[in-house]
Amino acid sequence: MPRAGLSAGSPKVDFAIDMGNPLLNRTVDGFLKIAAVGACKVAAEDAFECLHKGSVSKNKLEQTLKNMCKEGAYWGAVAGLYVGVEYGVEKIRGRYDWKNALIGGVVSGAIISAASNSKADKIAKDAITGGAIATAVEFINYLT
Amino acid sequence: MPRAGLSAGSPKVDFAIDMGNPLLNRTVDGFLKIAAVGACKVAAEDAFECLHKGSVSKNKLEQTLKNMCKEGAYWGAVAGLYVGVEYGVEKIRGRYDWKNALIGGVVSGAIISAASNSKADKIAKDAITGGAIATAVEFINYLT
Repeated sequence: MPRAGLSAGSPKVDFAIDMGNPLLNRTVDGFLKIAAVGACKVAAEDAFECLHKGSVSKNKLEQTLKNMCKEGAYWGAVAGLYVGVEYGVEKIRGRYDWKNALIGGVVSGAIISAASNSKADKIAKDAITGGAIATAVEFINYLT
Repeated sequence: MPRAGLSAGSPKVDFAIDMGNPLLNRTVDGFLKIAAVGACKVAAEDAFECLHKGSVSKNKLEQTLKNMCKEGAYWGAVAGLYVGVEYGVEKIRGRYDWKNALIGGVVSGAIISAASNSKADKIAKDAITGGAIATAVEFINYLT
């Protein structure tokens, strides 16, 4: 079941949605969690900027909120797509290893690149980069 | 023991080095594995370009080899640093959760940014981005 939330100690903010389908559940779960991380990143960056400059304006706060939504949605879409594709590949291949991450990364990279109106050349390169990053992350997982 | 290598089926290329220290072992292991991924990414990109253009020159091959070493070393350094910091944080905190990834990402992001001669502002922002990416990856791990 998709669960999103951050627990930095005792008080836990957590919510869950059941979409009735494991693929959809994972995709929504990935979207929610990573969107939250993306939004937090923007909030932290802008908080740093305000502390640095020593001033907070209403305008700036509105801008930050808009950016949090925009960047959160982008991070969430990338993560949801990747998690969904990886899960699909796992089901089709019937096993789990680093090649799932590679395929997931390649497919996600190509789709995201195509969605942002890239040329065919750039789509292929983004697919390669996506696959490489996903494989690298998968290898780091086995290390730690 | 650091082991590097890719196994795409039966024939396995694998080697291991024992540095006699678990922190160093992990760092070297991370460096070797992710450097290999980075080098493969450059090789795949350039192979795609050659296929696309339909020509391969000696000059181009030399350039590719140089880029493979350069990008491989960069990817390896980033991964080795992150794995080392995360392992250190785990030992100091005495437990493993997503906060280790966050701290590891923040420290790695700041060090890499500082090493590439960034301004103080950019170092702080890169640290935030590094922490956010590491946390997002950690969350995706729990999903899949």
